Amino acid sequence: MYLETIQSPQALKGLTVKELPALCQELRTTLLKKLSEHGGHIGPNLGFVEATVAMHYVFDSPQDKFVFDVSHQSYTHKMLTGRMQAFTDAAHYDDVSGYTNPAESAHDMFNVGHTSTSVSLACGLAKGRDLLSQKYHVVAVIGDGSLSGGEAFEGLNNVAELGTNCIVIVNDNEMSIPENRGGMYRNLKQLRDTNGKAECNFFKAMGLDYVYEDKGNDVEVLVELLRQVKDTDHPVVVHLHTQKGNGYGPAMRNREFFHWGFPFDLASGQCKVQFEGENYQDLTGAYLMNQIKTRPEVVAITAAMPMTFGFTPAMRVEAGKQFVDVGICEEHAIAMASGIAKAGGRPVFALNSTFLQRTYDQLTQDLSLNGNPAVILVFYNGVYSLNDVTHTGFQDIPMISNIPGLTYLSPVTKEEYFAMLDWAMTQKQGPVAIRVPERVVASGQPDKTDYNQLNKYEVKQRGKRVALLGLGVFQAQAAQAAALLQQQGIRATLINPKFVSGVDTGLLESLKADHELVMTLEDGIMEGGFGAKIAQFYGDSAMKVLCRGLKKEFYDRFQVKPLLTELRLLPEQIAADILALLNSK
Amino acid sequence: MYLETIQSPQALKGLTVKELPALCQELRTTLLKKLSEHGGHIGPNLGFVEATVAMHYVFDSPQDKFVFDVSHQSYTHKMLTGRMQAFTDAAHYDDVSGYTNPAESAHDMFNVGHTSTSVSLACGLAKGRDLLSQKYHVVAVIGDGSLSGGEAFEGLNNVAELGTNCIVIVNDNEMSIPENRGGMYRNLKQLRDTNGKAECNFFKAMGLDYVYEDKGNDVEVLVELLRQVKDTDHPVVVHLHTQKGNGYGPAMRNREFFHWGFPFDLASGQCKVQFEGENYQDLTGAYLMNQIKTRPEVVAITAAMPMTFGFTPAMRVEAGKQFVDVGICEEHAIAMASGIAKAGGRPVFALNSTFLQRTYDQLTQDLSLNGNPAVILVFYNGVYSLNDVTHTGFQDIPMISNIPGLTYLSPVTKEEYFAMLDWAMTQKQGPVAIRVPERVVASGQPDKTDYNQLNKYEVKQRGKRVALLGLGVFQAQAAQAAALLQQQGIRATLINPKFVSGVDTGLLESLKADHELVMTLEDGIMEGGFGAKIAQFYGDSAMKVLCRGLKKEFYDRFQVKPLLTELRLLPEQIAADILALLNSK
Repeated sequence: MYLETIQSPQALKGLTVKELPALCQELRTTLLKKLSEHGGHIGPNLGFVEATVAMHYVFDSPQDKFVFDVSHQSYTHKMLTGRMQAFTDAAHYDDVSGYTNPAESAHDMFNVGHTSTSVSLACGLAKGRDLLSQKYHVVAVIGDGSLSGGEAFEGLNNVAELGTNCIVIVNDNEMSIPENRGGMYRNLKQLRDTNGKAECNFFKAMGLDYVYEDKGNDVEVLVELLRQVKDTDHPVVVHLHTQKGNGYGPAMRNREFFHWGFPFDLASGQCKVQFEGENYQDLTGAYLMNQIKTRPEVVAITAAMPMTFGFTPAMRVEAGKQFVDVGICEEHAIAMASGIAKAGGRPVFALNSTFLQRTYDQLTQDLSLNGNPAVILVFYNGVYSLNDVTHTGFQDIPMISNIPGLTYLSPVTKEEYFAMLDWAMTQKQGPVAIRVPERVVASGQPDKTDYNQLNKYEVKQRGKRVALLGLGVFQAQAAQAAALLQQQGIRATLINPKFVSGVDTGLLESLKADHELVMTLEDGIMEGGFGAKIAQFYGDSAMKVLCRGLKKEFYDRFQVKPLLTELRLLPEQIAADILALLNSK
Repeated sequence: MYLETIQSPQALKGLTVKELPALCQELRTTLLKKLSEHGGHIGPNLGFVEATVAMHYVFDSPQDKFVFDVSHQSYTHKMLTGRMQAFTDAAHYDDVSGYTNPAESAHDMFNVGHTSTSVSLACGLAKGRDLLSQKYHVVAVIGDGSLSGGEAFEGLNNVAELGTNCIVIVNDNEMSIPENRGGMYRNLKQLRDTNGKAECNFFKAMGLDYVYEDKGNDVEVLVELLRQVKDTDHPVVVHLHTQKGNGYGPAMRNREFFHWGFPFDLASGQCKVQFEGENYQDLTGAYLMNQIKTRPEVVAITAAMPMTFGFTPAMRVEAGKQFVDVGICEEHAIAMASGIAKAGGRPVFALNSTFLQRTYDQLTQDLSLNGNPAVILVFYNGVYSLNDVTHTGFQDIPMISNIPGLTYLSPVTKEEYFAMLDWAMTQKQGPVAIRVPERVVASGQPDKTDYNQLNKYEVKQRGKRVALLGLGVFQAQAAQAAALLQQQGIRATLINPKFVSGVDTGLLESLKADHELVMTLEDGIMEGGFGAKIAQFYGDSAMKVLCRGLKKEFYDRFQVKPLLTELRLLPEQIAADILALLNSK
């Protein structure tokens, strides 16, 4: 057993090269045990064990700097840099995040979770090193899937001008999350097929030096290779052909499924977690497949995450040209959607809230300024969704709802979501985004709202003195708080705003007659958000406005209940605060 | 004279190919006359006359669709599509915008002004065409300078998968705004040097079909070439070697200066407009050159617009490795800046407000989440700056000031700007952005503020009843309104907030004692902006908050005074509205 003694890069260097394969095997076994019990990024880590060991064997981290793209492949790096217990001891599994994190270790350079950033970040480290006349090596790691993001291209184009040491390891496992998409990948195949010798070479065309290694999971070969390139006095691309899920049959056979997963049975590879009931991923996929079958102009678009809206491999095939995976490149997806809509098509682009951040300018200029009726489905938003700091969906409200010409809708119920989607799929007003809730709640009541009447809120209950505006999933908090207030003899007005991006001025004006307080509840950062619009509207009136939501902070791996409690977002807190305010007069 | 009769693409087709060079000469002469009298994009248009004529001669716009990148080279296209008078009649020069605009003509597909979007937009048009089983040609035009933007790369990578007609004309004039930057440009040179025959070919590495033409300003050659590629049943790159500023000596010799310019003397090429007094471009450049000379860790960064912060060609040479032009790629610039700061350097990235929109995600994830102390200078913001709808700087306040961990400062005076810059250049709290005013106003008073005390507003005058918070350039409006109120016997409190991104809770709390109204004035879109934070803060109190600023709209080629009047932002309007509110109680 090597693992017990190898808990630092320094200790690793005490081994002979011949001992490294056995160490890699132990690391892989350890990884698999934790992954099967805990879940996480499976394929990317299993495929990068050998390269990580070789990196730490040849370089001297943290003096030398490693930058991992997305950093979802950094588990072995964590094991070798003082964080082994988080992989061997179930009680400590959650001691580490799933990504690099400078707060955890000096060996981690950046908090990273989005793709395509490592080359630019590494280019910056190398530039800083040179400005300060320091001497160390900088190594960026980037997967083939991440190469399709524009930021990676910008990084490669610029690192080629650096003129000093910077090593870019391209971890080519022939996969993005699903299959790679884009013309560039034909060149990567050509390079793999010719052992890196094809004359037409994407990396060389970017002005970069280049070496290829087909045995990307042979640690002894990798040590030798990295020793050769280590002191290169200019940027060099080290193109490694690796096996995603290496060493674990199920993950090698079903690479998309095992990219990231919940706990699974190690022997069979079967997922151990069963999900009950409906979910918006599958419901949306089914809805869109139906649209696709009846309307040739409809096209579903993903940026390498088709399962986000339930497009299984079979559905992708069935949809044919009406399904487009653009690869990891959200900017292109928005611009292309604008073009499709301009030409009379009806594009629907579904993605995580956090990844939509890549497209602020495209949303503004390519899409909204041109008023083209594309549909954007914003999944994985709010407190009930992803909770890694790099993947939280807390900024989409301030981001989207302050862009001119873009309508942002937030449904509460399943019926409402599909009514909004029906409207979005046929309307001609301009681009529409919908904030898809994390959980399906059906009301049983059909939604007959005419969404062509923009910014018209729904009054669920008309009361007096206080109005509760609960946006999206927080309509539940509003309704429960209203019920609690009713017990205290106060019949509150309960409003479902539906429209995040606009203000129902007529309704708000009418509340002035017999209300003294309006409370807004939103599942995102409050600053620049929905409540801010309401507060601004009522600013010069006597109406008080109390806004609740998240603070302008980075939240990492929070628990929902304590967070809501801290933010005073529990129904009993909301009711109590309203009573206190009403009684303070 | 051909011009008089050639006012539509249809009329153009009546000419023989042999007549086209004479038409091009007339178009160029006409262009030069308007440009010299009116200003505009000079080099890009002069270099693309022949290609535009060839496009309209061979294709059938608007049935066939042209998408121009940035569309700053679309003047000839406008002349040939019914808008000739705007180029021949000085009284009508401003009838057209400087960019394509669907409101002007059915021949214009999109409102475009940012770079690197044409391939994605065209890819969308082609996809829409295919979904609807229609038949027409789609042509994207993109300059070599625009190729460095990640969105262009994403577009090329994806259009390669389209499988149907889409023609990408690469207008390679060997220049961005200044020189091109990036390893890719070595490959473009190699392709030019080998007449397109080099084996290593960036476009082929992207999976694209490719043809090269060295005579990119020979209209007869171009007509023949476009006829050959017109009906290609798959995407094809047509790489044209053109001459920026073609046919006008001064523009061919000084290509950076003549990229865009004010009116100039046609004979000498001398700019006719003289600017008096100081400007923040030159002042900032001089400041940074001084920093660069004394601090090796300081590095000035531009994305192809060095003159934005006054870096002349001579200063770029003098700054050496401490000046970096990344080319047109703002995303990389932010990520690299984060890396530089992490490594101990002090990067300063200056750019237009509108182009910072490209970096919302990089500002959030690559930079702010990592807390690295990079400095961002946001030029060309607000109503006194650029007024083309694609270039207005109205969104930076809502965009930047709601991102966690990012400090956004808005100076009023020259002294304040440099005090903020001094602080930003040395502080360790995290990333800092500064909103650079359009005009230099010196107070003569040194600014001794300790900016380490975040979110501390400056009280310029303490009064009662009403407080005016005038952000940045609108501090002038606030001060003038306060003076008018003084005449009415009301001594207002006058506050310079300085910090756009945060709230001075202590000060605002203290105002509750003897104020009943707070008015905020901001030079940007109000929704999600500064005033919204103040309104939100005071929401549950008796304090009234009146917010003034721009509406959430796209403003195009507005005049400042009428716009301010419409928004009730003139000092006399502000004072009158305050009086009305105070008296309404």
